[in-house]
Amino acid sequence: MPELIQRRDLDFLLHEWLRIETLSRYPRYSGQDRASYDDVIDAATVLAEEQFLPHAAKLDANEPHFDGERVHLIPEVKAALDAYIDGGFLGTAFASEHGGLQLPYTIFQAVSALFTAANIGTAGYLFLTGAAANLLAAHGSPEQRQRYMRPMIEGRWFGTMCLSEPQAGSSLGDIKTRAKPLPDGGYAISGNKMWISGGEHDLSENIVHHVLARIDGAPAGVKGISLFIVPKYRVNADGSLGAKNGVRLMGLNHKMGYRGTTNTALSFGEQGDCVGELVGAPGQGLACMFHMMNEARIGVGLSAVALASAGYRYSLDYAKTRLQGRPASNKNPEAKPVAIIEHSDVRRMLLQQKAYVEGGLALCLYCARLVDEELANPDEQVRADAHLLLDILTPIAKAWPSEFCLEANKLAIQVLGGYGYTRDYPVERLYRDNRLNPIHEGTNGIQGLDLLGRKVLMQNGAALKLLLGRIQASIASARASGDAALTEYADALANAIDAATRTTMTLGAAAAQGKLDLFLANAHLYLEMMGHTVIAWLWLQQAELATKALPSASAADQDYYQGKRWACRYFIRHELPKALRQAELLATLDDTTLNLPIAAL
Amino acid sequence: MPELIQRRDLDFLLHEWLRIETLSRYPRYSGQDRASYDDVIDAATVLAEEQFLPHAAKLDANEPHFDGERVHLIPEVKAALDAYIDGGFLGTAFASEHGGLQLPYTIFQAVSALFTAANIGTAGYLFLTGAAANLLAAHGSPEQRQRYMRPMIEGRWFGTMCLSEPQAGSSLGDIKTRAKPLPDGGYAISGNKMWISGGEHDLSENIVHHVLARIDGAPAGVKGISLFIVPKYRVNADGSLGAKNGVRLMGLNHKMGYRGTTNTALSFGEQGDCVGELVGAPGQGLACMFHMMNEARIGVGLSAVALASAGYRYSLDYAKTRLQGRPASNKNPEAKPVAIIEHSDVRRMLLQQKAYVEGGLALCLYCARLVDEELANPDEQVRADAHLLLDILTPIAKAWPSEFCLEANKLAIQVLGGYGYTRDYPVERLYRDNRLNPIHEGTNGIQGLDLLGRKVLMQNGAALKLLLGRIQASIASARASGDAALTEYADALANAIDAATRTTMTLGAAAAQGKLDLFLANAHLYLEMMGHTVIAWLWLQQAELATKALPSASAADQDYYQGKRWACRYFIRHELPKALRQAELLATLDDTTLNLPIAAL
Repeated sequence: MPELIQRRDLDFLLHEWLRIETLSRYPRYSGQDRASYDDVIDAATVLAEEQFLPHAAKLDANEPHFDGERVHLIPEVKAALDAYIDGGFLGTAFASEHGGLQLPYTIFQAVSALFTAANIGTAGYLFLTGAAANLLAAHGSPEQRQRYMRPMIEGRWFGTMCLSEPQAGSSLGDIKTRAKPLPDGGYAISGNKMWISGGEHDLSENIVHHVLARIDGAPAGVKGISLFIVPKYRVNADGSLGAKNGVRLMGLNHKMGYRGTTNTALSFGEQGDCVGELVGAPGQGLACMFHMMNEARIGVGLSAVALASAGYRYSLDYAKTRLQGRPASNKNPEAKPVAIIEHSDVRRMLLQQKAYVEGGLALCLYCARLVDEELANPDEQVRADAHLLLDILTPIAKAWPSEFCLEANKLAIQVLGGYGYTRDYPVERLYRDNRLNPIHEGTNGIQGLDLLGRKVLMQNGAALKLLLGRIQASIASARASGDAALTEYADALANAIDAATRTTMTLGAAAAQGKLDLFLANAHLYLEMMGHTVIAWLWLQQAELATKALPSASAADQDYYQGKRWACRYFIRHELPKALRQAELLATLDDTTLNLPIAAL
Repeated sequence: MPELIQRRDLDFLLHEWLRIETLSRYPRYSGQDRASYDDVIDAATVLAEEQFLPHAAKLDANEPHFDGERVHLIPEVKAALDAYIDGGFLGTAFASEHGGLQLPYTIFQAVSALFTAANIGTAGYLFLTGAAANLLAAHGSPEQRQRYMRPMIEGRWFGTMCLSEPQAGSSLGDIKTRAKPLPDGGYAISGNKMWISGGEHDLSENIVHHVLARIDGAPAGVKGISLFIVPKYRVNADGSLGAKNGVRLMGLNHKMGYRGTTNTALSFGEQGDCVGELVGAPGQGLACMFHMMNEARIGVGLSAVALASAGYRYSLDYAKTRLQGRPASNKNPEAKPVAIIEHSDVRRMLLQQKAYVEGGLALCLYCARLVDEELANPDEQVRADAHLLLDILTPIAKAWPSEFCLEANKLAIQVLGGYGYTRDYPVERLYRDNRLNPIHEGTNGIQGLDLLGRKVLMQNGAALKLLLGRIQASIASARASGDAALTEYADALANAIDAATRTTMTLGAAAAQGKLDLFLANAHLYLEMMGHTVIAWLWLQQAELATKALPSASAADQDYYQGKRWACRYFIRHELPKALRQAELLATLDDTTLNLPIAAL
């Protein structure tokens, strides 16, 4: 079995590139060193391989089912989750005061990628719980943290996020779930929620639902939405469990992939009283949720990367051992067949996967590193810059991997041919799992609107300027290296940046003239353009670093570093021109999709 | 339920564009008219909707299973197949002398698309049988036609194509199955075949396997391959069934999609004698198979189109009724939500699907029309031209739809959001079904090699010249229309043609210098470039025809024709530039994938 996330690559990104150890200069991470990080990654690698991976296919083939009373899952799921919890992984990035290990968020993301690559269906429960606990770390009262967050970090209780409703998915302003104030300061919650992952199961003693709802009399739209804790079992003053709360499982959704994580329709307050308690201020519910959204969205991107990495590594392994055909120039039918990796087109499919996977991984870890800066850097300006960069990179970190790492999974199937289309090999499952990522946590269409309509325009383009400044610095550094290949790549990226900048100004002018719908008509295209440009930037950085490391590298490392140069070359030559083409198209302010009459479809 | 293939569009393509009725000038189709064609399409539409569509989801959820003795299928499959057979559809395109209706192949393809869109798992058995019968129409002896082909056209027996083996998929020259001459003129067949669709079932009285094997002493490689009929049950002299032949089901392959069609590993001659009879001359097996390959590959492309059409039409329906959000320019949260089709990005996803689906359908029907010309046109030069055009268009007709119509299915899921990811809606199944098409009947990588390495070069580029001449004629016609939009599209296509031509010459020069591996290193990219160019050409033709029909059209037809103009505009502006970018890249003779060291992956 291959490594599903190449450890050499993780080490390169975390240490040689992101220099994670330097985080230990900040008080939050003081005293930590590479050994602290290696220990947790080593332990996670073993656990993912031994407890998560072995039942991934079985869980996919035996999805959770609801008998009307309770939800049944194969027993391997709970065993794996318990091992993860026993290992303390839920607390990886939480503060010591909350019972966590207080390791960098970046390390937690690296660890998460290992579990996702092994078995996203089982790992899903853990990520949801971590996110739910994190929400309380940011917005819960001290008492709420003690009552609800601690048990989640300890893994005794699990958590969910209840945003969508059957009639309100992308349009959260239209949610209808009600919260009626009760005399004791609590709220009676009533309504229906949809697409709630981990919404019901017997894997934990309790489930802490974070529910968006409207307090009676609240205004329409997003400003009227508040956030509530609604536990499956009520919690007594001493933290012990009380009676069942009025949360009812209406049914499980049966998905194409990602089958191991229950996905539920829940009703609140329909049968029996359902009580909740307010988190944060009334009307601040969506703001609280969106405070966490950057991390949730980077998490989606990282999941897409991890699934694609698994597909890439499986298909690479296969291509090295599967014998078939001969080079085009060898016409001798009696010549021994070669491994299919000898064929250019197979290498193309592998290199394309590598460029997408390692490019996407770099992006997600870069963002995670920004989260750490924002959280822990003592310098206010650095924190503000990290926040601004995260704002503009988040829609890209969510959408780009979920689009192109899905494409990578498609290529992994293609490398295996007919075998890849069967359920005897994992690549088709990974492809099905990954198809969710362009949809959840804000569809990629929504990400496009967020990027162009909000993040690019905000503060007079401050986030974009900051990003472009970072990219220009990388271009200058690569050019200064004197390496001909790096200079070629830097020049190509400079062209792409110029085109993207001109196009953004053209679009901005349309927005300034009040042509808002035209400005946003091709926002998804803008997102793809920026995505490819950002990934090209990260490849340039990786290639430069690899080039500098080559002269003193061991033989094995030389292969690894050369791989970075080849993948960068591929991305710059074969992929980046797509962004130029998109920039040209965007600059025409094409109104085809805007003005298309419905009757013409 | 929407029409899964829009009848208005079929009528446009068959009658207004391809002018199918003019085929009746040829003796083979004399006496036929539009009514003959409409009757069969009408009947097929009803049958597909009533007998094939209703069990498509059930069949997917209850795939065939093998209990060690026999293969079990849900009973709806046989009922639907029997209805199809009773309707005489298997004989649609076969000659009257063979018991067929002798209708144009193009009409048969239109009919096939209807069944595929409804339920590809059930329809698969029929297409395999038709292809197997067709092989005997071309290469069987009169006796073989009588003994094996007639029962297949009558639907009493089904057929298969047994090419691949576990160790030989793309590389057919390496097959090992043996044929040992017997004293009676027959052959003892022994070996293992893999990926045999319809290889075992109880749906028909007999199964006629067409098996590629090597006669003992035959040379290595493709020249040593011969073709054999190997029936599941031996056939007595009077056509009645004899004892079971030594063909054994080793197991069923469990696939991601396309689940209703059994896909099998078969062993021949392992347990019990297995006899076969030679078809055609010894050593001509692959040539016989490839004679049929154009049609089989166009059929794959058409399947991809039909699955995408179903996805497009479902998602279009959904987008018109699902309410969610408001236009970007409407900031009033109390405004009523709009149907999601009102959002530009949703219209983009629908228009993109339409452009892929109707572009792909045009390509496949155009190719089918060429098959009819080649088969029936009395003019030898026209037949030769049709053959040449088919040669160069076939790899494109197989690969382009299987790539981009899969993309369309991906978009259909995205339009439905979370719902699209569940098995409650058909779009995820269509996506899974369609993922096979880039793999079978020659992977798309093989198609790239076929196009660039064989079809473009052959006869000093005669096929490409012929194709380019046709495209230039369309450009001239569109420019002569005086319509500003058509002129814009024609100019864009002319640019793409120039770029493709220059690039082909650059590549050809590399081939002439003996740099064969470099010439072919980016063959898949060349295939995509040519595919987008060809589809743009077909869109230009459709848009011109629609433009000319507009002034005298009914209100409903005006919407339809405007749709053609919008889709053409989308394809020319948003898609065709991809081909230009690819042409530029190809012209650099980029050796990235060729020279990439394996250790760098």
